[in-house]
Amino acid sequence: MLIIGERINTSRKDILEAVTEQDTKFIQEEAIKQVEAGATMIDVNAAMMIEKESEILAWLVKVVQDAVDITLSIDSSNPAAIEKALKVHRGKALVNSISLELDRYQGLIHPIKEYDCLVAGLCLDERGIPNSSVERAEIALNLVKKLIEDGVKPSDIYIDPLITTLSTDPKAGQVALETIRNLKTANTEVHIIVGLSNISFGLPVRRVINRAFLSMCMALGADAIIFDPLDQHLIEILLASHAILGQDKFCLNYIDAFRKGKIKND
Amino acid sequence: MLIIGERINTSRKDILEAVTEQDTKFIQEEAIKQVEAGATMIDVNAAMMIEKESEILAWLVKVVQDAVDITLSIDSSNPAAIEKALKVHRGKALVNSISLELDRYQGLIHPIKEYDCLVAGLCLDERGIPNSSVERAEIALNLVKKLIEDGVKPSDIYIDPLITTLSTDPKAGQVALETIRNLKTANTEVHIIVGLSNISFGLPVRRVINRAFLSMCMALGADAIIFDPLDQHLIEILLASHAILGQDKFCLNYIDAFRKGKIKND
Repeated sequence: MLIIGERINTSRKDILEAVTEQDTKFIQEEAIKQVEAGATMIDVNAAMMIEKESEILAWLVKVVQDAVDITLSIDSSNPAAIEKALKVHRGKALVNSISLELDRYQGLIHPIKEYDCLVAGLCLDERGIPNSSVERAEIALNLVKKLIEDGVKPSDIYIDPLITTLSTDPKAGQVALETIRNLKTANTEVHIIVGLSNISFGLPVRRVINRAFLSMCMALGADAIIFDPLDQHLIEILLASHAILGQDKFCLNYIDAFRKGKIKND
Repeated sequence: MLIIGERINTSRKDILEAVTEQDTKFIQEEAIKQVEAGATMIDVNAAMMIEKESEILAWLVKVVQDAVDITLSIDSSNPAAIEKALKVHRGKALVNSISLELDRYQGLIHPIKEYDCLVAGLCLDERGIPNSSVERAEIALNLVKKLIEDGVKPSDIYIDPLITTLSTDPKAGQVALETIRNLKTANTEVHIIVGLSNISFGLPVRRVINRAFLSMCMALGADAIIFDPLDQHLIEILLASHAILGQDKFCLNYIDAFRKGKIKND
């Protein structure tokens, strides 16, 4: 399972400041903390920088990989920014994300192939985000088909069911979970990637919602999660969910994490 | 959804003492606390009392229903004890639990019909607990069929997938979740009841495992949960899961619980 740390994102005030001031040390500490907490991949996002996005994203890739020996999730909808970041990235990056929107697809498919990337694909086409899980799964399966026709390996494709916000859309959770279920039923090989935290936007104590949603997504078969690994209770739920799903035989990791103080009595 | 408080069980030392000393006040406070925390049904279990089980179980029913206006889950494998408890129970009790074991079935089916009860049915027959989820679902569907033939209403039947213990059986979680999934796929009307805490027996910080397992079971469609409602983080996960699954429109319950201090920042 890919455990992707989400914190290096210019929508966060402290990251925006660090990026603006080219504060290498702050960014690298954010990366190190996330890896120490359990992240196996780091997401970098500079979308707030708009005109400087390409330059900043490439800078983030270099700075983060100088600090941690890990591959990155290059998080942008801008093909030029993604291509520039891939040029400096070492190892097999995750391009986050492609979709069936024509311009986005055409702009991204070549660098994805050229740099042999993992790719996150959104359940989204020219018509926008479908409301129903059936339509989302259809779009996802069309996207998977197109990516494979264009030479991407099936095992490199991760589908993002698109997480909307519960506080404005009471069906947000159901539709996302049903989309995962439909996709896993239609194609047992398809990987699922979930950006966890959108679900709880605007609600009090968002982390509680995120925790419940994490184990639900894992129970339905999510293969990659983007979240904040510095939320210790979220890591606890992740470790517990691995144990429950038989991905941690005899709970050895869980027990080891407890001994190291990563799972606390409360 | 039935939210069943599990605390009044003579396997707990303080309950055993209170029962032995006929400490009505202690038992009633346990009942009141659980209802205040969110339980919509209270489980009573006196299995540790062996020879006195019948008498004690009936006493517990009376004592608890004198304190809280709620129906009970009568938790025993002893038909005589269940019948005696049902005689004094007010309202529609849950008989917890029947199975396809011959003696148990024959001993329980008459009181279940006579007192018009809800019934929890175990995925279990004369051969014991099957290892695979497919066999468990088969037994469950046979049990549902037999109960309906014997006059029990389908809507009164709750199937217990049987939760074994992760620390000794790495597949315990998977098999339970797959059984729920198989049953809900085979028969969308079948209700599922889950006794949460067995899963974590023998592990450190059991409550973390229970929390992850709660939202997983809910995501797969559990209709009744037996657990300790005094674990506040478990109630938080329950409320969050209801919101995610669209059972709490616009998260009004979740937000209300937050305002009342039932969901805390941590």
